[in-house]
This record gives sequence, structure tokens and C-alpha cells, in this order.
Amino acid sequence: MSSSSLTSVGRHVLSITVDNHAGVLSRVSGLFSRRGYNIDSLSVGETENPKISRITVAVTCDDIICEQIRKQVDKLVDVRKVTELPQETGVYRELALIKISVNAYNRMDIIGIAGVFRADVVDVSPESVMLEITGDERKISALMRLMEPYGIISAARTGMTALGRGDY
Amino acid sequence: MSSSSLTSVGRHVLSITVDNHAGVLSRVSGLFSRRGYNIDSLSVGETENPKISRITVAVTCDDIICEQIRKQVDKLVDVRKVTELPQETGVYRELALIKISVNAYNRMDIIGIAGVFRADVVDVSPESVMLEITGDERKISALMRLMEPYGIISAARTGMTALGRGDY
Repeated sequence: MSSSSLTSVGRHVLSITVDNHAGVLSRVSGLFSRRGYNIDSLSVGETENPKISRITVAVTCDDIICEQIRKQVDKLVDVRKVTELPQETGVYRELALIKISVNAYNRMDIIGIAGVFRADVVDVSPESVMLEITGDERKISALMRLMEPYGIISAARTGMTALGRGDY
Repeated sequence: MSSSSLTSVGRHVLSITVDNHAGVLSRVSGLFSRRGYNIDSLSVGETENPKISRITVAVTCDDIICEQIRKQVDKLVDVRKVTELPQETGVYRELALIKISVNAYNRMDIIGIAGVFRADVVDVSPESVMLEITGDERKISALMRLMEPYGIISAARTGMTALGRGDY
């Protein structure tokens, strides 16, 4: 992102289209871990073509090393295309399911907060409520922080997926 | 799912909590690919504890072999817990971004169909519309099939994430 010649560490999002073969995911994620970089989030799903999947990887790493990894990913068997999505030209979304401990007294508080975040209530039991929320990472993290005092029983986030806006 | 003693091939969803260390994702996905099983979808994201991530893997495989893989995953370093989520007791969700080619004549058709699926329009340009949809795999696939005739420019799915309902 920076035009400076000094290297800097930042958040990078790589969008990788791959042929749907066994092993490609393991090889892609191995390129990051071999250099000691932990992937912040990763999602894999089909594209418009069922034979091709898209892997979206978010990783915080040194800009120069990220570019080296990008080139290595590009050379892997079964990898079709690697694009780095710049923050400004992409739509970034993540989905989370959050199961919260509730009782008769605070259930409506939680459902009220969910409404503010446009989160859907997808399951209710006597002791718990499950919310589904979509948005960028910050929105999801903000809702999770608000729910913490009630007691989060479990949570699952899909990891970020992304596409370029308009012509990008 | 079957109580028969005959082995059968089916869709399995494993929910795996892991310590957030480099390499664990590569090792988990490698266990599937080494046996020649291609992962249908996989998502990794933080849980309520930022040091712990949850990997949700959907794979179509032989029931007995899936159980063997589950046990092997359980033995991996950095893996805390592996649960197989049965279809009936889980909430399964996926998010997709779909960018569709449009013109002045069909733009409103697409926005109308999006409304029926409760999909959000997240970007509009003169030549394209981007939709965000959440739901189970079938709902997302149904919308993608409806959009195909207009021309899908690109699509990205997060892969499924899941949590057990109520006490599960």
C-alpha cells in the first residue's frame, strides 16, 4: 500500500482461484506456515464454476515477504490465479454464528442488541440464543465484545471472503 | 447417520478447535488430501477466544474413513477438540458474494430476485451488481443458478460454518 521503499508489515488479502483437487489447500496454507506466518483467516468455497474454488486468505505480514509468497502460490500446481485485493477496491465480508448464554431476564436485551447490528436470531433455547451476523471483521468483533458480559458459549466465524468492486 | 453396519459415503461436517499457531491448518487439510479426499468447503476464523480458532470442514467421504480421519485430527499438535456435527442438531451457514453482469434493462430484475432471497445489494456499477447472500448451501446454489443466465462475473463463497443448536 505504501510507496515508500522501506518495508512494512500490513494486512494482506489474497484471492486465489484453484482447480478443485485434493491437496491444493494444504500446499497453499503450507507456504505461509513454513515462513512462520499464521493465517488470520481463510475461507474456501466453490466459485461460479464447480470445478474451480476460490481461497481467500487474510494474513498480516511484511509487504515484501507477502509478495514473495504470492509469487510462490502462483507457481503451485492447480493454482489458476492469485490477486491481492487492495482494501479500497474490495468488498470484504465474513459471517459469524454466536451462541450466547441467556436467562428469562436478559433474553430480550440480547435480541435488542442483535437488532441494532442487523443480526438474525437463528436459534433460541431456554438457556441460549444463537445469532447470525454478517459484515466486516470490525462489526463482528464489536458485537462479540458486547455479548461477552452475557457469556459466549461458542462462536464460529467463516473467515473473510472478498470480491473486487465494479471493474476490479 | 445410518445405523446399518454397512459402510456408506456421506457428507460429514467436522468442527475443530485449534490453537492459533502457524501450520495447524496445513496439517489438518493434509490429512484429508493424503487419502485423496477433496474438501468440499473449509472455513477458519477466530472463536470467542482470539488464541483459539475454529476450523469447519465439510467433506464427502466414506463414514468409516471419516471416523479414522477424525481420530487422526484429534491427535494432531495444536488441535483441542474435534466434533462431528450431525445435520439435525446444527445450524449451518455460508456467505457468498456474487458479481453479476447487468445492463439498464435487466438491473431491476436482478435486484428483484435478490429481494426474494433476502440477499443484499452491496455494490452497483454501470455494468455490474454485487449481491451478498447468507444461508445454507442449497439456498446459495439456487440463487447462483438463477443468476447464471445474466452472466456471473465472479463469485466467492466462504465455505460453511456451523454450531450446534441449544445444548449441543
